[in-house]
Amino acid sequence: MKFRDKLENTQNKNNSLLCVGLDSNYNRIPDFLKEGEYPIFEFNKRIIEATHDLVCAYKPNTAFYEGQGLRGIEQFKMTTDYLSRNYPEIPIIIDAKRGDIGNTNEGYINYVFGYLSGDAVTLHPYMGKESVQPFLDIKNKAIIFLVKTSNSGSDEFQSLELNQNIPLYLRIARTINDKWNDNGNCGMVVGATYPDEIKKVREVAPAVVFLVPGIGTQGGDVEKTVRFGKDNDGKGLIINSSRSIIFAGDDKDFDQKARNSAQNLREEINKYR
Amino acid sequence: MKFRDKLENTQNKNNSLLCVGLDSNYNRIPDFLKEGEYPIFEFNKRIIEATHDLVCAYKPNTAFYEGQGLRGIEQFKMTTDYLSRNYPEIPIIIDAKRGDIGNTNEGYINYVFGYLSGDAVTLHPYMGKESVQPFLDIKNKAIIFLVKTSNSGSDEFQSLELNQNIPLYLRIARTINDKWNDNGNCGMVVGATYPDEIKKVREVAPAVVFLVPGIGTQGGDVEKTVRFGKDNDGKGLIINSSRSIIFAGDDKDFDQKARNSAQNLREEINKYR
Repeated sequence: MKFRDKLENTQNKNNSLLCVGLDSNYNRIPDFLKEGEYPIFEFNKRIIEATHDLVCAYKPNTAFYEGQGLRGIEQFKMTTDYLSRNYPEIPIIIDAKRGDIGNTNEGYINYVFGYLSGDAVTLHPYMGKESVQPFLDIKNKAIIFLVKTSNSGSDEFQSLELNQNIPLYLRIARTINDKWNDNGNCGMVVGATYPDEIKKVREVAPAVVFLVPGIGTQGGDVEKTVRFGKDNDGKGLIINSSRSIIFAGDDKDFDQKARNSAQNLREEINKYR
Repeated sequence: MKFRDKLENTQNKNNSLLCVGLDSNYNRIPDFLKEGEYPIFEFNKRIIEATHDLVCAYKPNTAFYEGQGLRGIEQFKMTTDYLSRNYPEIPIIIDAKRGDIGNTNEGYINYVFGYLSGDAVTLHPYMGKESVQPFLDIKNKAIIFLVKTSNSGSDEFQSLELNQNIPLYLRIARTINDKWNDNGNCGMVVGATYPDEIKKVREVAPAVVFLVPGIGTQGGDVEKTVRFGKDNDGKGLIINSSRSIIFAGDDKDFDQKARNSAQNLREEINKYR
């Protein structure tokens, strides 16, 4: 099944545009879990059990697992295997922010789509279409490019003005939409902390999926994100929150607190659809 | 010890600007090694034993290891541990091409500098200084940013002209040189396939280390790379070749063939210093 169909099925089923970011920083998971053999996996499992009927996707970020070395990566795979087995209808977005030359990208393709069973991956666009062609050739996965990132310093290069006064991020968005998306599998990252930019990117890319980080801890604007980011069908939008959901609690009831937080955010998002 | 000192010590000791890329694609390593338990590690060990007196650095690319899942990453660590133990004077450049928001980058810092014992890492600059500050704060490591990459399609965004007709890659180079390099630990990737661009980047960044891929299989120009890329001391340059060295042979004598290939390239480079 194509990513977009899988996503929309789950968006409909769970009435949700919410993606939970499984940024399961070992240092922040509750202490009582650390007595077990696989604390990161156990944490993720409980978050998933508490939220799977509220989300349209999960987005683990590779950094938090790789930061724990082999043990972390092992629990990363246990998590994606658990999701594939128990909730095969929920898309897994591997937030890897990779990008290398063509023959090297084959290794990352094996990692994110093979080993980790991802349905989508995030990539840096800087090296150009020719470099990421091996990703673009995979029709049933989503290839989601960083366009305007949520961090406070993202203007430094992304908003540089090109000749004819077009900012770089918008030129990249237009190029991806017009020239990279032959297989209809491209998506774009646009940060909730930059609602005006979400609006501009939606103008040049009316139908691609937006992955929007920056809600929650980073302080992004939910109402504007939904209003400016949705496509004509009120979809095409994956709104991610990580820390404000998965670390809503730090005690035995952390999963229930995560559920409450996810439920509140899903409803806030739905108010504006 | 600072990266730059470690690099120059080994450049002097081995009279070499050559970096061997340990892009140890499992599908291309000799079949006879695949009978052992750790074929990728065994391959790397023999390449290292055959070339350690000819190089100024080794550069494993994470993609080839991650593409083999946990087994690949385990052998990645075995390789960097082997290097650190036996050849602690040779810098290890982890070619990871990462780049995320600040708090997430901490995970990659643990991975590349902690778990994998790297001396340097490659990063995408697209998200801006604020995002990579946790890397820049590590004074004794080198943080090497993609500026003009070696792939044939790298012009698509990297050579876009900004207002005042400056191409993007040059603006990024100037910014990194002038504003990101407070700790003197920044480096830049400039591809040997673009000698004119190497020259221009050297003009705006007279003293930073250049990591130059694209020699060998990719067809980069050795003479121009050295002439245009070296700094005032005839150094500041790490010239990488991967496939044309490590896969020079595919039989029992692959390590001797790799040595011959490395020796030839080291000497060709030295002709132009």
